[in-house]
Amino acid sequence: MTQRGRFITLEGGEGVGKSTNVAFVAQWLRAQGLEVITTREPGGTPRAESIRELLLATTFDEPLDSDAELLLMFAARAQHLAEKIEPALARGAWVVCDRFTDATFAYQGGGRGIDPARIETLERFVQKGLAPDLTLLLDMPPEAAKSRLEGRRQASNTEPDRFEREQAAFFSAVRGAYQARAAADPQRFALIDAQKPLDEVQAALTQALEERVATWP
Amino acid sequence: MTQRGRFITLEGGEGVGKSTNVAFVAQWLRAQGLEVITTREPGGTPRAESIRELLLATTFDEPLDSDAELLLMFAARAQHLAEKIEPALARGAWVVCDRFTDATFAYQGGGRGIDPARIETLERFVQKGLAPDLTLLLDMPPEAAKSRLEGRRQASNTEPDRFEREQAAFFSAVRGAYQARAAADPQRFALIDAQKPLDEVQAALTQALEERVATWP
Repeated sequence: MTQRGRFITLEGGEGVGKSTNVAFVAQWLRAQGLEVITTREPGGTPRAESIRELLLATTFDEPLDSDAELLLMFAARAQHLAEKIEPALARGAWVVCDRFTDATFAYQGGGRGIDPARIETLERFVQKGLAPDLTLLLDMPPEAAKSRLEGRRQASNTEPDRFEREQAAFFSAVRGAYQARAAADPQRFALIDAQKPLDEVQAALTQALEERVATWP
Repeated sequence: MTQRGRFITLEGGEGVGKSTNVAFVAQWLRAQGLEVITTREPGGTPRAESIRELLLATTFDEPLDSDAELLLMFAARAQHLAEKIEPALARGAWVVCDRFTDATFAYQGGGRGIDPARIETLERFVQKGLAPDLTLLLDMPPEAAKSRLEGRRQASNTEPDRFEREQAAFFSAVRGAYQARAAADPQRFALIDAQKPLDEVQAALTQALEERVATWP
């Protein structure tokens, strides 16, 4: 029987380097001889990416209700789990995902102020007990991340999305919620100082991977 | 203080005459001197209508997971409640809505086989106790509705959406779930035989409205 794959998530605010380090983590795992897929949330499948577009869209005059936002996040997640993550894990592939439910607790919980108990209701509803095996939290003060993000945006000439348009207090609350979740579950989380130079960040990621992967059967 | 408006829903399968009769009910209420808005689910606001498009789309190769479908329905509903239904009721307008949560129990519960207890979890989550004051269920055998619908579709040259493409067993299950809900809550529901000629259907609607509206403070 094929051994089920492992589920690793990278978390953190905008501009902390998640995309670069998702690729780094996947490469490190592949070097161990593992089959790896990388994916992201919200999104990861065609239907889930179309939900992502609704979540990020700035083209509506109408505000997006915070419950509607939360339900869209979990709708995209249900689709992503059913069509991509679960089939991959079942066939023994490892999944490295750019954001997952910790982001919902950080953004919709910390950022929007939705009661975490309400988010847990939907987490149980959709995930039925599934949780990441390891979560790498790239932590950085929002001001530092913001200046990175603005440099990148000027270089690529893109407009900020609906989340990127939020104010400093929102991003502080997001970071605080992430840090609190990491502190509450040190076994699942590895907190990585993402303000350091990239080679140091990646050395820390490697160390976190080596420590955890070695303990798994 | 303005008296809160009343919330009336019309329910039933495809082709039973909901659109025509939403307009009829609104007109009857306006003739009583009431402010009335008409709306529909899924949809009713620009953002909720864009969720509706995802729900009805037949352009994806990827199946839509049944939990994702259910969460999209409730995301659209949360948006619709926050941006349109609740503000209207609060200012004293009556709301006549083409489908609401009974449709979710009928289609996602009866049709797709999702446990009604799971739907109730989301109903409580999103509606926080809100329920229609009156639900007019237009009941008809699915075969009769289907031939109506096909005539209409040929006349307008439109393609069937993702729900309209379902098979006979699906529509029988939808009807059964609707009937069971009406039987379980006769105070809220009026069951209307929608196979009769339109003038008889509308006489039955008028009678249901007169009976209920007269009992409301």
